[in-house]
Order: sequence, then structure tokens, then C-alpha cells
Amino acid sequence: MSQALEGLLVLDLGQIYNGPYCSLMLAYQGAKVVKVEPMDGESLRKRRKDCHEFLMFNSNKLGITLNLKTEEGKELFLDLVKKADVVLENYARGVMDRLGLGYETLKEVNPRLIYATGKGYGLEGPYADWPAMDITIQAISGVMSSTGFPDGPPVKAGPAFSDIMGAIHLFGGITTALYQREKTGKGQLVEVAMHDTMYPVLASPLGGFYRSEGTLPERTGNRHSGLAIAPYNVYPVKDGYIAIFCDAQRHWESLANHIGRADLLEDSRFRTNVDRAKNVEVIDKILTDWLADKKKWDIVEGFYEARIPSAPVLSIAEVADDPHLIARKMIVEIDHPEKGKIKVPGSPIRLSDSPLDEVVPAPLLGQHTDKVLMEYVNLNEEQLSDLRKKQVIQ
Amino acid sequence: MSQALEGLLVLDLGQIYNGPYCSLMLAYQGAKVVKVEPMDGESLRKRRKDCHEFLMFNSNKLGITLNLKTEEGKELFLDLVKKADVVLENYARGVMDRLGLGYETLKEVNPRLIYATGKGYGLEGPYADWPAMDITIQAISGVMSSTGFPDGPPVKAGPAFSDIMGAIHLFGGITTALYQREKTGKGQLVEVAMHDTMYPVLASPLGGFYRSEGTLPERTGNRHSGLAIAPYNVYPVKDGYIAIFCDAQRHWESLANHIGRADLLEDSRFRTNVDRAKNVEVIDKILTDWLADKKKWDIVEGFYEARIPSAPVLSIAEVADDPHLIARKMIVEIDHPEKGKIKVPGSPIRLSDSPLDEVVPAPLLGQHTDKVLMEYVNLNEEQLSDLRKKQVIQ
Repeated sequence: MSQALEGLLVLDLGQIYNGPYCSLMLAYQGAKVVKVEPMDGESLRKRRKDCHEFLMFNSNKLGITLNLKTEEGKELFLDLVKKADVVLENYARGVMDRLGLGYETLKEVNPRLIYATGKGYGLEGPYADWPAMDITIQAISGVMSSTGFPDGPPVKAGPAFSDIMGAIHLFGGITTALYQREKTGKGQLVEVAMHDTMYPVLASPLGGFYRSEGTLPERTGNRHSGLAIAPYNVYPVKDGYIAIFCDAQRHWESLANHIGRADLLEDSRFRTNVDRAKNVEVIDKILTDWLADKKKWDIVEGFYEARIPSAPVLSIAEVADDPHLIARKMIVEIDHPEKGKIKVPGSPIRLSDSPLDEVVPAPLLGQHTDKVLMEYVNLNEEQLSDLRKKQVIQ
Repeated sequence: MSQALEGLLVLDLGQIYNGPYCSLMLAYQGAKVVKVEPMDGESLRKRRKDCHEFLMFNSNKLGITLNLKTEEGKELFLDLVKKADVVLENYARGVMDRLGLGYETLKEVNPRLIYATGKGYGLEGPYADWPAMDITIQAISGVMSSTGFPDGPPVKAGPAFSDIMGAIHLFGGITTALYQREKTGKGQLVEVAMHDTMYPVLASPLGGFYRSEGTLPERTGNRHSGLAIAPYNVYPVKDGYIAIFCDAQRHWESLANHIGRADLLEDSRFRTNVDRAKNVEVIDKILTDWLADKKKWDIVEGFYEARIPSAPVLSIAEVADDPHLIARKMIVEIDHPEKGKIKVPGSPIRLSDSPLDEVVPAPLLGQHTDKVLMEYVNLNEEQLSDLRKKQVIQ
């Protein structure tokens, strides 16, 4: 059984989180991904000595160094482009053009090439040239203003959602373009702006905004963003917190029965979801009192039996060893030649006929430079040594 | 110029956010998406009368009703499956099997079928049968414990990231399987669990956790999740808040010069990022004082000139009319037959050779039932009227 993207060559200029997560998904589906780094490594590798984040996003890739600021480095890159199916980069707008390696140049060299560009604000539009990072995109996109409590400041989502949402949309764009290439024989430019991907995900805050004509609070703590559903909150319990969400009437009925309060089902204040949302303070008080002296796993186990949607709030330490993620090989323990045993993500995309390879640690800086340049550009040892002297490769 | 997914037929059983966002992306790339709803509509359509969220996720789809609990409804569905390329659903595990319409049945009818299933916890693993919603996945996945202030409770990210991250990974899985089908001629099962997609995005909190051996706070407010970068925060200004992030040394140098504090560059407390991260309180105080009497857009315009990554924190009202998103057609104003002018998302995935269609409003309930069943199952008006009487279609 072959992997879905077997036989494809990806040149990955990705850096930090956005580009590398996209190419990690390509690698996990069987593409050969060559991570092309500057002589001193990409930004994330350099950020600190022991960068676990770098190891999380660069498994199953080959790593080469190539000095794209030299003429010979550019020529070698173009030689690789001739053999490649995909080039992927998430530099600031204009960087590739200034290197003389923009899409217009690359497609002359290889018309079948799919050129994928991950941007903060995209290739055009009034903000296109502004520097963009996960935190700034979270700020400008409404993520922050919709996160936190009504009486507190805007809060960023802890995880780097802008980077990864951009990355996985880009992956979807690349695979869509690969499918189209089967029909047309031609490559194309694929563009995803992190900022764009943050707009659809605001559905609940935007829904609340339009329904209330702007009178709802922008952020509602752990309550429903539109304040339209109850129970829907995070409640303190004896050993932490749990989240509860009664979406359907049957969830509410199960909950009332489960906590021994069948009487609530007769109470006109709680008849429908609209009624309950109006009386959310009363509902939250009832639940908080019932939950206070119980432990999170005890509560949710009872709730699961009763089909009431709920979950414990797990700490980062608990997530790092989550038995479900481990059983699903979403957390994979591997041996790194320098770091020893480390835990990295597997693939969240599961295809029944495209088996996932063993996870191989991220490359050391320049680990596969010789191998890749010998195989794809037919260089010999002497030429490699010469390029090394000239600081074209490391 | 054709669209990338033109000619493909998708049967979309998606509901709420997860399935519908995935099929919206398929529709935007040119697939014909038939949204198959129960007689009273899918959950989100029913949630409230004026559901803007539903309109955001169901543009460019045809809508039919089909009672899958009747024998004739099942048969009609199987007739459609024979013509389909993709079936997509995000019901709880086991629902499709109990209807007699699980993957094993459908692939017998159509071996080229790609069956895509969006799940909360996936098809297997210890949590697989637990009810899952965006808020519960945010709780159990570490999103909440890494969001909020160190001295406050865990906080959910306002936007429905679990739903949409699951959806867009599923889209990438489907397009990958479509590509593979070009090679093998066969369909397959594509599975994505929302919970799985939340693990890689925790890179910064997990990096901090492993580096500090668990001594770092799980959530750091608006500071860097690993407390490893400074300046990195959200600062109050005269008319709101702005986010600032100095990733590279050059950003810090620009910032110090821009605020008239070149002296900071000589100060050993702030020499490297590691030094600055140690003295984050001092840095944040300096910035807060400088920013307090200035307006957000004035500040960021100066910062953009100086190439210092920053952004204003925009309100939901501001995002709803963001000129950049409008210029990029990421916010599209359309005419809805019942609601009048509404704003819905365009496609964040941009392919240079697959033009995006005009955005067409979400179907009314059963709007295209007759059209679709006439075209794909060759039913005539009499048969349709008979099925309507028997409550097989609406």
C-alpha cells in the first residue's frame, strides 16, 4: 500500500510554525520534503538552544543548508526546482522576489510547479506589507477581543492558532492544486493569509454581534460567545475545572435528572434553551453548588454515562501524557540523536489507504545536504567540498 | 479556466460548524456540494430563528431534505452515493452505522467513494465514545489551561477553533485522498478528530513545559506562552489595546530607537532576548508608559514604518467591517432572499488557476430537493410528490 503523496518532492523554505506545520502534513502523507535552511538555520532553530517547538514541526523531513544569497546557491535551488512538485515558503511578502526566486521566475523553470505561499495578510490588500506574527494576527482578527471576561482585558488564545490555521489551509490548497494538476498538467500559485483564516472561525461572536445589533459583550468568559446557550460554562470543582455544554434539549433533561433535580424540568424559567440562556446565572449557581465537592474525572465519567457533553480541563502536564492521544499515536515518543527521548505530534489526518510512516526526528542543521544534492543535482564530493569552501552550503 | 474541484459531487451530512466548514471549502473550490438535511433541518439551522452562523458556513451548496430513518430515504441516499465522489459527515461515532449507512456499506455501493468523517475524539481510542463539542475539546486538549492569566481561571478561546481546525484538516485529508484516487482509482476512509488537531498547536505551551520541567505557569495572559520572548504583550493605549512582538534583535533595536530610548540598547538587562525575557516587567512598564496617551492606529502606523511587528486589538464590530478583509473578498456581502444583505466569509484558500465563484446564499430548507433528485436519481414529479406524502422528503 503506497502513501497518498508518495513520489512528490517538496522544497520547504518554511520557518517558525506556519510553513513547517504545512510541510509536516505533506511529509506525513508521504511526500519527500527537503527543508532548505540558511547557513545558520531557520529562525525557530536559532531561537533557543533546546527548542522543542522546532522538533515538533520538522519530523520526517530531510534537511539541507543552502545560501540563497549567493549566485551558486540560487542556481542550485533552481536545479532542485526543476525536479520539485511543490515549493513552499512563508517569508514576508517580497522576500522571494528580492532573492530573484519569486513565483514568476520559478514557474519558467518548472511549469508543473505548485508554489505555496503562507502569508500574514496575503499577497494583496491594504495590510499586505505589515509585519505579521501569531500574536498580531490574533489582535487584529478579533480572536483577542472575543477571548476573556467581559470586565477584563482582551486575551490571546494560548496556542498559536493563527500560524497553524494558516498552515493547514495552505496544506489543503496544495493538495487541491495537486489534484487539479492531474487534470491540467500545470502548476499554480497557492496563497493563504493567516488573517483570512481567522474570520470564519469567529462565527459565534459574529452571530451574537449581528443578532444583538452590537449590544452583546464582545467576550463572555467561558460562557457561549453569543450568550445563547445554557448550561455552557467552565465550572470550578474540587480538583480543578470542568466544561459543560447542553446543546440539545435531551442534554438538559439528562443533566437535570443526573444531578437529582428533575424539578427543574417543570420550571418555566428553564423550559427551552432561550429560557435557560435568560436565566444563566441561576443555572450556573445550581451547577456550581452541585459540582463544588466532586472531582473532575468522577463527574465527567457520570456525565458520559448520562450522555451530557462535558470534559475535564486538563493541564499542559496532563495533555503531554494524555492516554487517548498516545493510544491514537497523536503523541509519539521518538529517539533524537542529541536530545534522547522526545515526544512529537503524529498526523491528525488519517487515510485508510495511505499508511503513516514511523516518525523520524527533525534533521540536524544540514544533515542531508550532501545526500540531497548528490541525488537530485548529481553533484560529486569534490563539488560539494568546493561549495562548502565558498560558503554556499554548510 | 476551470475550478480545481469542478465535476466532483459531494454529499454533505455535515452539521453545526465542523462538517459544514469543510464542505464550504470544497464548494468554494468548485465541487458540487449537496447538503443533505433531516426533515426539520440540521442542528444549527434549528438552533435559533435568525442564525447568522448557519449562513456563514453553507454558501454555494445545494440543499435537500431526506429522511434517512425511512427505507426509501436510505435507498435514495444510496442512489446518490453511486454518483458521488465524497460523502462527508460529523455525526457522533456509530450514528451512520446504526442508520445502515456506514462506510463499509457505502464502499460496496461505490468503491471510488471517499468517505470523510469528522469526529470529536476519532474512531478509536479510550475517549472515542464521549460526546464532543468545541468547548469540551478546548477543555480537555489544553487550549483552556494555556489561555488566560496565571492568577485567573482557565479561559476558552472565543472562536470555535476545535470545530474549524478539525474541519480544515478534514478538507486537506479529502483533497489528499482525491489526489491518491487519481493514482489508484479507489476511494478510502478519511478521518480527523478535533482533539488530535489541538495537540500540535500547543507547541509554545509544550515547549515551555518541557524546557522548564513544568515550573512555568500554564497560562501567561498576553505574554509569550513560554515566557521566552520580550517585548511580547498586549498593552493598553488611549483608545483600546495594541499587541507588540519583537521576535528578532532588529525589531527590538527599531523599537528602542522609535520610542526615543536608544539608551536601552546599551543596557545589559536588555541585550539579548534571553536578557529581555528575564526583565519583562521593566520592559512592559517602559512600553506601557510610552503608549498610554497615544491612539492605537497612530501607534501601529509608526510601528509599521519602523518594521516593528504590532497590531491594534480590533473589536468584533471593527472586524465585521475590516477594509482589508473586504478588499480581499474574505468578507463578502450577498443578498439573501429572506434576510436581505448579509456578510459571509469568502475562501481563505486562493489558487491562481481555480477562480472563485460568486458567493451564493445558503439554501433554504429543502430548496433543491426536487432539482437534485430529478437530476441525479431521475425521479419525476409524481414520484417526488409521492415521497413527499410519505414524509421521505420535505
